[in-house]
Amino acid sequence: MAEPSDITAMRRAVALAARGLGATSPNPVVGCVVTDASGHVVGEGWHQRAGGPHAEIHALRAAGVLARGGTAYVTLEPCNHTGRTGPCAQALIEAGIARVVYAVGDPNPQATGGADTLRAAGVEVLQGLLEDEAEAGNLAWLTSVRRGRPFVRWKYAATLDGRIAAADGTSRWISSADSRADVHRLRAEADAVVVGSGTARADDPHLAVRGIEGAVQPLRVVVDTEGTAVKPGARVLDDTAPTLIALAEDAPSDLDDALLVRLPRADRGLSVPALLDALHTRGVRSVLLEGGPTLAGAFVAAGAVDQVVGYLAPVLLGAGPTALRDAGISTITDALRLDVTETVRIGPDLRITATPKER
Amino acid sequence: MAEPSDITAMRRAVALAARGLGATSPNPVVGCVVTDASGHVVGEGWHQRAGGPHAEIHALRAAGVLARGGTAYVTLEPCNHTGRTGPCAQALIEAGIARVVYAVGDPNPQATGGADTLRAAGVEVLQGLLEDEAEAGNLAWLTSVRRGRPFVRWKYAATLDGRIAAADGTSRWISSADSRADVHRLRAEADAVVVGSGTARADDPHLAVRGIEGAVQPLRVVVDTEGTAVKPGARVLDDTAPTLIALAEDAPSDLDDALLVRLPRADRGLSVPALLDALHTRGVRSVLLEGGPTLAGAFVAAGAVDQVVGYLAPVLLGAGPTALRDAGISTITDALRLDVTETVRIGPDLRITATPKER
Repeated sequence: MAEPSDITAMRRAVALAARGLGATSPNPVVGCVVTDASGHVVGEGWHQRAGGPHAEIHALRAAGVLARGGTAYVTLEPCNHTGRTGPCAQALIEAGIARVVYAVGDPNPQATGGADTLRAAGVEVLQGLLEDEAEAGNLAWLTSVRRGRPFVRWKYAATLDGRIAAADGTSRWISSADSRADVHRLRAEADAVVVGSGTARADDPHLAVRGIEGAVQPLRVVVDTEGTAVKPGARVLDDTAPTLIALAEDAPSDLDDALLVRLPRADRGLSVPALLDALHTRGVRSVLLEGGPTLAGAFVAAGAVDQVVGYLAPVLLGAGPTALRDAGISTITDALRLDVTETVRIGPDLRITATPKER
Repeated sequence: MAEPSDITAMRRAVALAARGLGATSPNPVVGCVVTDASGHVVGEGWHQRAGGPHAEIHALRAAGVLARGGTAYVTLEPCNHTGRTGPCAQALIEAGIARVVYAVGDPNPQATGGADTLRAAGVEVLQGLLEDEAEAGNLAWLTSVRRGRPFVRWKYAATLDGRIAAADGTSRWISSADSRADVHRLRAEADAVVVGSGTARADDPHLAVRGIEGAVQPLRVVVDTEGTAVKPGARVLDDTAPTLIALAEDAPSDLDDALLVRLPRADRGLSVPALLDALHTRGVRSVLLEGGPTLAGAFVAAGAVDQVVGYLAPVLLGAGPTALRDAGISTITDALRLDVTETVRIGPDLRITATPKER
């Protein structure tokens, strides 16, 4: 049975895990809290980067001999396999941990089995504590394992009437400085930031993370089907962060081949599944899709949007481009229906987070 | 000085006032709580309908002799003039009330002066308690007095990407049953419900209040500039509620003249100020503008939207008509900027309330 103190410790582990968002791919984020035999916290840790120690190892090191007879709270089932680091199940046993409480089972077939190993060694194992919270914290990684492609979060900023710019194309600023700062947090959490050729042409965006200390820069990806939007000297090509330009197999380009990935065409633009597959192969587990409306429409049409984050500014325009276009939906029964999971005020704006209903 | 018990009593008076919304025009909503000399509540009342007793009279009748030496809490300054009912200031004095606490001063030049009359009679008078809450509760009436035209609340229901229908025109149902029920509450609070010819033609709407016991039916108004959208037999012409068809001075009509108001044309459609003036003359102090997008655009362009209530459904379409069109805004610096005053979940939807910033 879970006690209130178990919940407190696991909630802390979930918070610790979140510190790794954007830095651990292709691994999940994981947090761990170790308490001694009398229930005092003696060690904390989180998985900080791929190739580095797992959360349990950090927490066990901090705890030292105090871990003996204690409890380990882990947001994900301790791993059972020897990758670049040793199996955590074994490390917990060797440290003398008497009880392991974990939130979410490991869906990765190569890593699962940790719970069985622990039980076989006489460790008490409790599964499922704060499972929903831990799942939400690992949404990107869990989705990528289950779908075999990166998790896609589509972010847009629009007026209350759904416009992303005025009729003359001006858009500075529809959303507030607070919202724009918040977007940098989303970028920092993602492995890749993706925009289309329209955005590249109109805005010459930089797409790197600014203003977040210690952030790992995401891969900057421009979907430039015809190879005409990103020219040498574009801001996205500077050395702040790695960059990838996706273009059609037959498109010309003046850019260095090392920057390019050539993909098959779809009815309009490039194949979204091929793009996601190419990113997955490069270790990308979470994508922040920043637009524009046509590319977002292609992702929606491909069933490849896993979460929507909309920044709604309390502004009315009555004309101008809309946030989403050409999503392959022509009648109301085909609409993409979602569940709102969060609504937050960000300065004067509203940030609405929603996930598509299962279809 | 206001005591906690004063705040409790005034908050109750504000809640009582709200019961009159939609039924008191051209009068304000007003609530009143009377306590005896030792502070116990001995009477409550609210203004229920134009021509009926004011809130103070209801509360004083309930209190009877217990009002002597007591306090009256009123959301609006007690009136000083003899209209269809006697002046409330005099009634409070005659009942032996020792202290009057009111929230908002009466901006109506014909009715103001009640506080002076009370003071002259030796009654202690305190003004401004919960002024903001009482102002918000009387927003429609106060706005109508200050602007000399009805308060206009624009209501729309749209997808997250700002669409009110799919590309083929289908829209049942974008918003949820909960949101649609909530709209009937907005109708019940309004003196008039206004739609344009596009909505009349496409939906043959009924526009009456359903499902709210005791609701006073609002005046149903269709802006049918050319006189072509509302035909004999239209649902809006039944006898559930009064109806007014606004059309251009030179437009033909098969309808009974008693249903018609003829107004000057504007650049597009009818003159919005002339429409609001015609409604004001008929005693309308609050308008619920239900669309469609073109009529809403004309109201925005005329600076005649005082509050926006948007029902946002967690749905994406990527194509189809938008909630607002032709608002006379072509560049971002001319955008209509608002402040969000409330965000509420209504079933699966979000209801966002916002008011334009002063310009």
